[in-house]
Amino acid sequence: MPGVKISIIGAGSASFSLRLVGDLCKTKGLSGSLVSLMDIDKNRLNAVHTLAKKYAEELGSDLRFETTMNLEDSIKDASFVVNTALVGGHSYFEKVRQISEKYGYYRGIDAQEFNMVSDYYTISNFNQIKFMFDVAKLIEKLSPKAWLLQAANPVFELTTLISRVVPINMVGICHGHHGVDYIIEKMGLEKQKVDWQVAGVNHGIWLTRFKYEGKDAHHLIDELLEKELKNFKPTNPFDDQISLVAKDMYEFYGRMPIGDTVRNGSWKYHYNLETKKKWFGEPWGGVDSELGWKWYQERQAERAIITQQVAKYFKEKPKAKLLSKETQQAIISTAKDDLKKEYTKEVYELLDPEKKSGEQHILLANALLNDEKVDLVLNILNKGTIPGIADDVAVEIPVYADKNGIHPYKIDPDIPERIKKMYLMPRILRMEWALEAFLTGDRRVLEEFLIRDPRTRSYEQVVKVIDEILALPENEEMRKHYSKK
Amino acid sequence: MPGVKISIIGAGSASFSLRLVGDLCKTKGLSGSLVSLMDIDKNRLNAVHTLAKKYAEELGSDLRFETTMNLEDSIKDASFVVNTALVGGHSYFEKVRQISEKYGYYRGIDAQEFNMVSDYYTISNFNQIKFMFDVAKLIEKLSPKAWLLQAANPVFELTTLISRVVPINMVGICHGHHGVDYIIEKMGLEKQKVDWQVAGVNHGIWLTRFKYEGKDAHHLIDELLEKELKNFKPTNPFDDQISLVAKDMYEFYGRMPIGDTVRNGSWKYHYNLETKKKWFGEPWGGVDSELGWKWYQERQAERAIITQQVAKYFKEKPKAKLLSKETQQAIISTAKDDLKKEYTKEVYELLDPEKKSGEQHILLANALLNDEKVDLVLNILNKGTIPGIADDVAVEIPVYADKNGIHPYKIDPDIPERIKKMYLMPRILRMEWALEAFLTGDRRVLEEFLIRDPRTRSYEQVVKVIDEILALPENEEMRKHYSKK
Repeated sequence: MPGVKISIIGAGSASFSLRLVGDLCKTKGLSGSLVSLMDIDKNRLNAVHTLAKKYAEELGSDLRFETTMNLEDSIKDASFVVNTALVGGHSYFEKVRQISEKYGYYRGIDAQEFNMVSDYYTISNFNQIKFMFDVAKLIEKLSPKAWLLQAANPVFELTTLISRVVPINMVGICHGHHGVDYIIEKMGLEKQKVDWQVAGVNHGIWLTRFKYEGKDAHHLIDELLEKELKNFKPTNPFDDQISLVAKDMYEFYGRMPIGDTVRNGSWKYHYNLETKKKWFGEPWGGVDSELGWKWYQERQAERAIITQQVAKYFKEKPKAKLLSKETQQAIISTAKDDLKKEYTKEVYELLDPEKKSGEQHILLANALLNDEKVDLVLNILNKGTIPGIADDVAVEIPVYADKNGIHPYKIDPDIPERIKKMYLMPRILRMEWALEAFLTGDRRVLEEFLIRDPRTRSYEQVVKVIDEILALPENEEMRKHYSKK
Repeated sequence: MPGVKISIIGAGSASFSLRLVGDLCKTKGLSGSLVSLMDIDKNRLNAVHTLAKKYAEELGSDLRFETTMNLEDSIKDASFVVNTALVGGHSYFEKVRQISEKYGYYRGIDAQEFNMVSDYYTISNFNQIKFMFDVAKLIEKLSPKAWLLQAANPVFELTTLISRVVPINMVGICHGHHGVDYIIEKMGLEKQKVDWQVAGVNHGIWLTRFKYEGKDAHHLIDELLEKELKNFKPTNPFDDQISLVAKDMYEFYGRMPIGDTVRNGSWKYHYNLETKKKWFGEPWGGVDSELGWKWYQERQAERAIITQQVAKYFKEKPKAKLLSKETQQAIISTAKDDLKKEYTKEVYELLDPEKKSGEQHILLANALLNDEKVDLVLNILNKGTIPGIADDVAVEIPVYADKNGIHPYKIDPDIPERIKKMYLMPRILRMEWALEAFLTGDRRVLEEFLIRDPRTRSYEQVVKVIDEILALPENEEMRKHYSKK
């Protein structure tokens, strides 16, 4: 096999990049490929490179790697470009969050604009959207036949924007639908006997079909919720697939919200920390709270340290084995117990030749390249798949992929009208407003966006928060962009 | 001519009913018709009856009248049913407004739900929507070939609801598009040389085409706004077609908002009385303010007194003439000067055989019955007329009517995307939520509706305001309805 070139933009994100590398190592059809690791953070890039080579070696796979800090070099000749970059990193979002909360925009994922938690800022992350847009246009110029696999957020906005405007092959990829696997495991069902579908938009997908042995099995969801929520106590801030929020949304909308959809309910669940705790459970009140996000940030920082330690270790001892006792002792001696466990588990899974990561990128690449048909859940333009949603809006839907491309399955049964009109459409409108702002550079659109935000009390509040965000030194380009009108 | 039966439900509204009667008197094709005046307020009904007969007599027309307090009697055998009833009257809305403001729902028309001003309550006026729905079903049962002309608000919600669910001929009618005539007059243009279109949804229509002598004439709007707004001073609270709000919306959306559309902008113009005054002008801050609405209520009360005086006078002196000096002196001696003028002007216009009221109901009836083609602006299901809006949503669009029915004109040019995505779609969603609540009786929909309202600060606020409104004695049926789930 000659292999192809696969570019990972933002490859410094170790756990994500290594999951892709692991999948690649275990995919015969992509043997011989060149993985181009691109990042602007040299340290992180080198660490990932060292580890990627190590995994490839221990898995005995025929992969080549290159590292580059130059975007064009990485994209040139690529057949697949996985874009997972986070421009400005989490520290930028933290700055925006602080400014926003100062002006009364308390964190809550429903808003998905100024001051949202996580990395899903739709109107204040101009630099992120601009970068993703530029990458897409660069692909059009340098590798017009390549596929762009958009992994970085905001997936919904970016998939819609790029698919509408840039004539390349592209798809948005998220793993939120694995919430269904979690539910099935909790029920103790045989996976093969469950027939399910999810549909919606990114971070807003719903379990539209749930059958066991050919029969509707929603009663099993009722039972599961009943059982699990008697003494609900999340194990971590992300543990919300079976939660009081999920149950409340399930009861109101008639279908189970899957993955980040649960975080993305209305302000009913987010007004303040007390409300969040009530709905998402103690002690954190979910990940989209002061406490939950702190937990996540600290954990991320610790994991970054482990990554650097591990990379340094293998740089010095290239012949050491990933799972040897010595290695384990040497590299994670300082980490907390649960992080040690998590890390070791990940290494085991990465080295297990039978186990793939659950990320869809490599499965998709293999299907497109080698015609190995595979079922996935991807973000592509609707084009009639979900009735009542415009053709040119990116939806997250079940599809199969093969050498002829990506083919949506019929959504059967359809998404209930209440979900479309009360959950999906409001979210779709906010996406449209974000793109309207981005494409026109009209500051008034940002203003109107916030005027419709339930956290806004006055026009002055809107003006002030936008002014202060635009005044951040890293937002010089954004400032210019929004001075056009 | 044998004539037909025309039923007016809620005929106690004197000025509206008399405008229709005036139009009928001046429409040869409807000569010989029977006008069935129906209302549950006997005094108001009798007053209107007396005056209607008087006008018909002085205009020398061949109309017959009947009065009834029985809905079924009025609908039976009718060819047209004009529904203009306001269940509970303005006093009910005043109660709801007071409760709502107590809980932080300050008045502002954008919300169009709890605590809106005017008579356009979409979720707290269950009795109104229920009554209109029942009238439609009664027409289906008693006079299945009749046309329902829906004049009462909420026109948008009711036209969509009834057109979707009840298989009768129906159309929603409003006169908001006369704002265009006002603009043309202000410009001093020859009406015949202006080619214009408006399109949108009820109370949300935009001047999509404005040509003078075949050429785009938006520069005349720019000039008019520039000139008129140098020293903007509204003559009454409704005087907002040329206002700072209209200008701001025009600049942002790229088209001129027409009629109530101006009142129906975002919270930017409505946060508090000071904001309202800034945008809608001193001293009232528009009609959707404490001061503006007080002005309107007082005026309505005074007008009601005049109506009763006039009716009493003609009851006693059946041979007196409407415009004689004695009549004038006798009946409006106690009224304020501007009201006297307004009243006298209305009588003149009603008695002018060449002048019609500007209401569209009788024009439409005549076109449908006698094939006299006429151009109108009506509310009907979209069915593809405005791209990007669902087929089953009622839109307010230019049409022509003839014996074959109502035929939409092509909207050319189309409504700009920004108007669709930032103004129309949010409004359409609120309509959908109101219908979802009404059709399901699910109280949680009312709650979610308010949770998405920018005035809401907590879930408790939502629960309390709904509880108190449901507890009103006149809301017994609503209370039962929303206890279903």
